[in-house]
This record gives sequence, C-alpha cells and structure tokens, in this order.
Amino acid sequence: MNKIHKLIIIGSGPAGITAGIYASRAALNPIVIQGQAPGGQLMGTSYVENWPGEKSILGPELMSKLKNQAADLGCQFIEEKIDKVDLKNRPFTLWTNNNREIKTDSLIIATGSEPRKLNCPGESTYWGKGVTTCATCDGAFYKDRPIVIVGGGDTAMEEASFMTKFTNQITVVHILDKLTASHTMKQRVLDNPNINIIYNSTISEIIGNENHITQVVIENTKTKEKQNIKTDVLFLAIGLTPNSAIFKEQLELDKMGYIVLKGETQTSIEGVFAAGDITDCKYRQAITSAGQGCKAALDAQRFLENN
Amino acid sequence: MNKIHKLIIIGSGPAGITAGIYASRAALNPIVIQGQAPGGQLMGTSYVENWPGEKSILGPELMSKLKNQAADLGCQFIEEKIDKVDLKNRPFTLWTNNNREIKTDSLIIATGSEPRKLNCPGESTYWGKGVTTCATCDGAFYKDRPIVIVGGGDTAMEEASFMTKFTNQITVVHILDKLTASHTMKQRVLDNPNINIIYNSTISEIIGNENHITQVVIENTKTKEKQNIKTDVLFLAIGLTPNSAIFKEQLELDKMGYIVLKGETQTSIEGVFAAGDITDCKYRQAITSAGQGCKAALDAQRFLENN
Repeated sequence: MNKIHKLIIIGSGPAGITAGIYASRAALNPIVIQGQAPGGQLMGTSYVENWPGEKSILGPELMSKLKNQAADLGCQFIEEKIDKVDLKNRPFTLWTNNNREIKTDSLIIATGSEPRKLNCPGESTYWGKGVTTCATCDGAFYKDRPIVIVGGGDTAMEEASFMTKFTNQITVVHILDKLTASHTMKQRVLDNPNINIIYNSTISEIIGNENHITQVVIENTKTKEKQNIKTDVLFLAIGLTPNSAIFKEQLELDKMGYIVLKGETQTSIEGVFAAGDITDCKYRQAITSAGQGCKAALDAQRFLENN
Repeated sequence: MNKIHKLIIIGSGPAGITAGIYASRAALNPIVIQGQAPGGQLMGTSYVENWPGEKSILGPELMSKLKNQAADLGCQFIEEKIDKVDLKNRPFTLWTNNNREIKTDSLIIATGSEPRKLNCPGESTYWGKGVTTCATCDGAFYKDRPIVIVGGGDTAMEEASFMTKFTNQITVVHILDKLTASHTMKQRVLDNPNINIIYNSTISEIIGNENHITQVVIENTKTKEKQNIKTDVLFLAIGLTPNSAIFKEQLELDKMGYIVLKGETQTSIEGVFAAGDITDCKYRQAITSAGQGCKAALDAQRFLENN
C-alpha cells in the first residue's frame, strides 16, 4: 500500500464534503477520512432552515445528500479516524486508528470543533432536540417561547442579545458571580429587562417529553439549591474545542487551538490546507464552511499543478 | 417614504440571496434590490453539479429555490437597479433607476462581475448552451470532447491546463501573437501536446443546432482567413468586469475595480459590506459567494447591534 494519493481530506462535515465534491470534479481522486463524528455537527441537529436551497431539511438528511453527491462524483470515504500525522516530510503521512498508513501529496484538514458540554443527565438524550449550540442557526424557531442560554462570555451575550428579537423570555445561567464577556456585550444584556441572569449556577439536569426538552434544573453551585425552569431550548455557549490536537506539533495554531491560515485556506505548511470550524470561531455556519471547503479544494488543485 | 431601513442588499446572485436568507432570519427585514441581472450569473448556465446538496440542477432553478426560501423568510425583493449611492453620510442613501430614494443603516453590496463577451453572432443564442465562462465549474461535463477556450491570460491558461484532465482535444484561440499569461502558467500550456494554440485570431461566429453549440468560426485578425472548428463548448476567458462603477467615488476599489475588504466582508466604509464576485476574482464559485453572503449578513447584524 505504498500508493501516494493526490489529496486526502480529513473530516466529513460541510467543509470536508464540499472539498470532496470539488476535488472529485477536478479529477484529484480524493479520499475523505470521516473521523470520529462522520457528517460533523449537523448530524446532531434537527431542522436546518438556513442552508441556501433547502427551505427545511433535517441536518442528517442534508449531510447525506452532500455525501451521496460526492460519492457519485467518485469521492471515496473511509470510516476511520486519523490518530497521527507527519506533515514535516513530503509526501505527507497519516496514520489511522487502525494503523493504516496513508501517503498524500496534499491535505485538507476539516476536522471542525466540538462544543463543550455540560455532561449532565438528559444532555445526550435531548441533544439536537432542543439542546443546541447556535442561536444564530436556530433562534428563529423559538419566537415568543421561553429560552435558556448557559454561559457568561461573548458568545452567550451575543446569543442572548440576538434572541431578544424573537422572545422576551430569556434566561442566562452562568457559573460565576459575574459575566466574563467584554464590556459592551455584557452591558447590552444587563440593560435588557427581558433577559434574566442567574449567577453562580449551572444546569444539573435536562428534562423533556422524549421528543423535546421541556425544562431544565438550575442548581446554585454555592447553596446547592435547585429550581426548575420551563424552556423550549437550551443553548450551550460554554466554549468550543477545535479538533486540532494531532496537529499541535506540526502546524501553527492560535492560542485557542484553531489552525492559523495565510490567505484563505493555506496553513503554515505548503500543501496543507484547512477549512471550516477548525479555522473559524466567528461564523461557524454550514454554508460558510462549505464555501471554504470549496476554496481549499481549488487551492489544493492549484498547488498540485504547480508542484 | 422617509423610512430608514436596517439593511439593503444590492444584487440577487448566490451572495445577495444568502445574505437575504440570513438577514431575514435575524429579523433585519432586508430588502434585496435585484439589479440588472436578477439571479446573477447562474441564470445563464444550464446544469449545475457543484452546488453541495444538488446532484444536478438547472442554474435558474437553483436560483429560484434560493429566492423562494428568502421570500418565505420575509425577505423583500425590488425589481430595480441602483444607479447612484451616497455612502458618505449616514444613513446611507441609494437611488434606483426609477428615481426611488432608499435610506438604510447598513448595506451589503453583492453586484457581482460580468464576463467580457465576444459580441459575435451566435453568442447570445448559445449562452449557457455551451458558451460559458468557467472551466472549473463546467469542465467535467466535457470528458473526451473537443473544447475551445478563447483568451491568452492566466485564466485562459488555467482553464486549458485544467481541461487536460478531461480531454486531449483542446484549442486555445488568442487575439495576440503571444500569450499574456505569467511564465509558469504559459509554459505548462505550451509544453502540453494536447493543447493547440491559434494566435492572432478571434471567434467571429458561434454555430449550433439550436440546443447547443456545435462549432465556432475562427478568424485570423491579420489575414481575415476563417476556419470552422467543431467543439462542444466555448469557454470565454477574456476577462471580467466587476459591477462597481457606481461605488467608484465612494469605496476603496482595487486597480481592476474589485471592492477592497478589511477582514471578511467589511468595505472601506463602516456599515457597508460586500460579498461574492464583486470582491473575488480568484474562486468565483456560487458556493463561495453564498458563504461570503452569509458572513456579510452576520457582520451587518453585529454592526447594527453595536451602532
């Protein structure tokens, strides 16, 4: 198995699969290594209504359309996970969790990021059934409904402010005794009478009716007092972990672990490109990831033609 | 009509409409001014097979899906064209070709670019029926078929090199006696025995069978000699004109007329954003435009929250 591939893509969310579609059409015979969460974060969502061209589609259904399209164009998929990489020598070498060694002339990293979780009872049961991570994506579904956001940083504040357009029943639950967000974002939330902030508290349990979340149990971390609050949704805004651990010694990462880019998709190593949430903690939308996945494939194609 | 809108979007290609979808979901009540070519460049294509999620769809059908989705979310569309803008004073003021005055707190410019045309007989008849502008988009449709590219710059060379993956019957027609592309790109084409270059020549007529182009007439500009060549496609690579004329005195443009961005979508004026081909002569794909349109809407939303 000493074949040297032209292009390997690590990750199978919207960025990885769009890269696969474009690279297949450019006859690069790409292989997508699906990774630990095949399909990416959309697999854990229910209805998606902000993918241009789909009025309303289930997240897993959208990802399956993308994957089938790539496969029809000749893109190959491997259901393994990359555990180790050597990007210092060309061709680049990757090792999967099954100890398979793969050599490639170019690489697109689209491993995404993972939202930090509460790890409380009910969280996995109601993940994608009202427990979600992106108010910008899902906020419009909760017009005039009670909603709960957990977190006290910029993301939590932004989501709370954003949600005031839709509802005046907003509760923010924060583990510390003060918000950690930047001044302006914090002030806007503090000034809004429709946002209720519960400090020194966390969510200790998520309760639902099997199909959807209906309430959360909020526990004060000091007094251990508990209260139940009815809600239609729980937005987690307690941080993201970019899936970049295996690249740490090889590529330039920023303080938070995101891959640093020169230009649109080029990493610190020529021939290694990145796209999607592994490069972006600002927009984090399926369509922005897809756009960047396309760019990574076109950049890889140009790189291969010139090398 | 002294109402001040929150957000106006100029242009209705993939960038403008995706911005409309996101801005509608963010309750910004956006209005899309459709411009002189409603739907953008995809309206002049036939089958699109590189839009993630659509295996094969007609360009106009894809744009109609996007537009309906935006409209269902409350996005408004105006079938006019902006003739004049004042971006120096806030709120910004726009004037349409019907002398309608529109005031807005923020603006997204997605006016795209226009491929330069040959203006020869048959061109408009077969536009989108084999006469097209993007080998990266459409190349895969012409496996083992004869193809003709007109142009002698970097884009023409890139398209010719790209097409060698699919066919060995490639003709490049160039109006000058030497190629104007950069050295490497030119050399790769000159070294390839499957690419035939015809210098000092232009396409004087495009001939077809009503449904599709079948041949082109190539005329030597010096001797006026003509020859007919059979072809399945004619790729125009003779340049693009960004639709930025009305912004010339107001926004920073680069030498070629593209809008210069600070960051992902911010123009030289705060509150004015841009997305799609008006900012990009490198990737020019519907999906990259859509991704940037989404970013522009999210950036406009953040701007409006902070101003």
